[in-house]
Amino acid sequence: MTAETLTCRAAVAWAAGEPLKVETVQVAPPKAGEVRIKVVASGVCHTDAFTLSGDDPEGIFPAILGHEGGGIVEAIGEGVTSVSVGDHVIPLYTPECGECKFCLSGKTNLCQKIRTTQGQGLMPDGTSRFSIDGQPIFHYMGCSTFSEYTVLPEISLAKVNPQAPLEEVCLLGCGVTTGMGAVMNTAKVQSSDTVAIFGLGGIGLSAIIGATMAGASRIIAIDINESKFDLAKQLGATDCINPKDYDQPIQEVIVELTDGGVDYSFECIGNVDVMRSALECCHKGWGESVIVGVAGAGQEISTRPFQLVTGRVWRGTAFGGVKGRSELPSYVERYLDGEFKLSDFITHTMPLDEINEAFDLMHEGKSIRSVVHF
Amino acid sequence: MTAETLTCRAAVAWAAGEPLKVETVQVAPPKAGEVRIKVVASGVCHTDAFTLSGDDPEGIFPAILGHEGGGIVEAIGEGVTSVSVGDHVIPLYTPECGECKFCLSGKTNLCQKIRTTQGQGLMPDGTSRFSIDGQPIFHYMGCSTFSEYTVLPEISLAKVNPQAPLEEVCLLGCGVTTGMGAVMNTAKVQSSDTVAIFGLGGIGLSAIIGATMAGASRIIAIDINESKFDLAKQLGATDCINPKDYDQPIQEVIVELTDGGVDYSFECIGNVDVMRSALECCHKGWGESVIVGVAGAGQEISTRPFQLVTGRVWRGTAFGGVKGRSELPSYVERYLDGEFKLSDFITHTMPLDEINEAFDLMHEGKSIRSVVHF
Repeated sequence: MTAETLTCRAAVAWAAGEPLKVETVQVAPPKAGEVRIKVVASGVCHTDAFTLSGDDPEGIFPAILGHEGGGIVEAIGEGVTSVSVGDHVIPLYTPECGECKFCLSGKTNLCQKIRTTQGQGLMPDGTSRFSIDGQPIFHYMGCSTFSEYTVLPEISLAKVNPQAPLEEVCLLGCGVTTGMGAVMNTAKVQSSDTVAIFGLGGIGLSAIIGATMAGASRIIAIDINESKFDLAKQLGATDCINPKDYDQPIQEVIVELTDGGVDYSFECIGNVDVMRSALECCHKGWGESVIVGVAGAGQEISTRPFQLVTGRVWRGTAFGGVKGRSELPSYVERYLDGEFKLSDFITHTMPLDEINEAFDLMHEGKSIRSVVHF
Repeated sequence: MTAETLTCRAAVAWAAGEPLKVETVQVAPPKAGEVRIKVVASGVCHTDAFTLSGDDPEGIFPAILGHEGGGIVEAIGEGVTSVSVGDHVIPLYTPECGECKFCLSGKTNLCQKIRTTQGQGLMPDGTSRFSIDGQPIFHYMGCSTFSEYTVLPEISLAKVNPQAPLEEVCLLGCGVTTGMGAVMNTAKVQSSDTVAIFGLGGIGLSAIIGATMAGASRIIAIDINESKFDLAKQLGATDCINPKDYDQPIQEVIVELTDGGVDYSFECIGNVDVMRSALECCHKGWGESVIVGVAGAGQEISTRPFQLVTGRVWRGTAFGGVKGRSELPSYVERYLDGEFKLSDFITHTMPLDEINEAFDLMHEGKSIRSVVHF
């Protein structure tokens, strides 16, 4: 059975700075090595807002945004073997081809197989599967989950346990995995380690979950918005600190509080000054700081090299260092086993027609995650 | 037999910027937990020159400089059990007490047991063992090897195989261990890894030795002084590059040369701009850069956080991450086994009276290491 072009509804970003518009779009069938999925739910993430704002130098319009989804395979292209129609999947903006130098290294999750075309808003063959009356619409981060149907390369799909509710585990397609993975996968926090987490948005809160699961003895949560502290404590933070309460730099406060600094720190904001604080609150001799947040274009981090020469380590992570196809399914299993909850993060749900409200809620700081249900 | 104060000759730094003066000094006997050694030889290192220049904010005068020595135990204080009279030892500016939080962590060689007094130019009890006609002279880096006799805490001595010539293995007291250790101990370079080494002074050349011993498949040596290239190649460098030969930034040159960047890089100069180049020539996804050089006071390193988020790691090292008492003796054994030579590094030897020539040769770039023989 050969799939045909289908028509569905999608939220289209026509231009930077403008609200999304729900349109009727045509979605071409998957070509060789591609898969078309029915999107069941999609989180709305800061990265979508960043691109929509026009600040993303790689942003291309018109495009269908969205990259934190969950869906069901509707059709497969020629040669696709790893998923079948009906499988539940999470789209991956970081694919895992298993063949490129990066995948073969075993040292990174940053598969580069389709990086160029993905960055151009196109499928690996250099074309788009989306169109409106013949006008091509660009893909976004290789996912485009703000559409009832979307097409992805096979290597960009994690097949997950169908018992998991896609309306919740869609969050594992970006933010929650990024935060948890930064702690458990990139930093490899161990039982009894001390941890500082800067920024209590969805990623920072997920990092707290990761630290709790790892058995960290002390989890210091830092934010200037104290309304986040209740949930942070509920998830396992042992100390919540507002830098505005101190005259000293916050790194000095943390060093005093922890008799020398923390074993691991995580910057979950994207603020280069906070990245410095996060490094400098680490313990001399062994403390490691992980940059999770994404800074604005052209911004730089700095510190005195003495910080590193005396044993601190500065690293970063993307998607929590998690390999999408080989490791993400185990996060879904741990969720199903009750090791962590996702409902805490979902503050709002809405149909596709109300997707712009999700962006408004985010800009107003009123949501952790809004999830669009299709 | 209780030791008494003895009189000997030592090169005294009376004030910043002035040549050393060889003087007759009194060396008090070792107190409890201390050891007096007869210095057999001492290398003259850039750090000695840095302090003598007055640029070292922690420099104190008058002092007896020198920290890269080899000697023989002459007298031990009360309670000293780990060394005996006649033992051959290498003084350690980074001690290893085995008891402090840092030593007990197992994660660092930065023992902090006597850090405060050592930084003040004093023995752990807050006094000096050196004097001239009753005027106290300060210790330096806990070593003061520019003296025929010096006193150190027991925890600041590595007992080494007496078959090793102290006139050579004294270099393991600082520079050579720093470079080799950065590669083998801090970075843990493995067979077939690719490596870039910035700066071909004694530390950079030692890093080449370490990379060769580790089995690195490619060792790229970078310096603007091409006269260093012959020795670099002799020690194992596969490529020698002069950044002045290129219009592009050197990190771009190296990324092209290595199909994406090196697995590990080492900055062995102390130049913050080079530290950035060293980080940015590392391979996306896993490349790690180690800062070995010491930058000037107040200088800062910077880069775009994207460099770290895409998988590069920035770290530093002091004394090559080598634990002085538990690990340094094995470096001496490997030297005795013929795994590496030290004679390549010793470009000049001289008696104590000519020690100022060692500083001149260093400033003129004419020496790798000068070693003073007592």
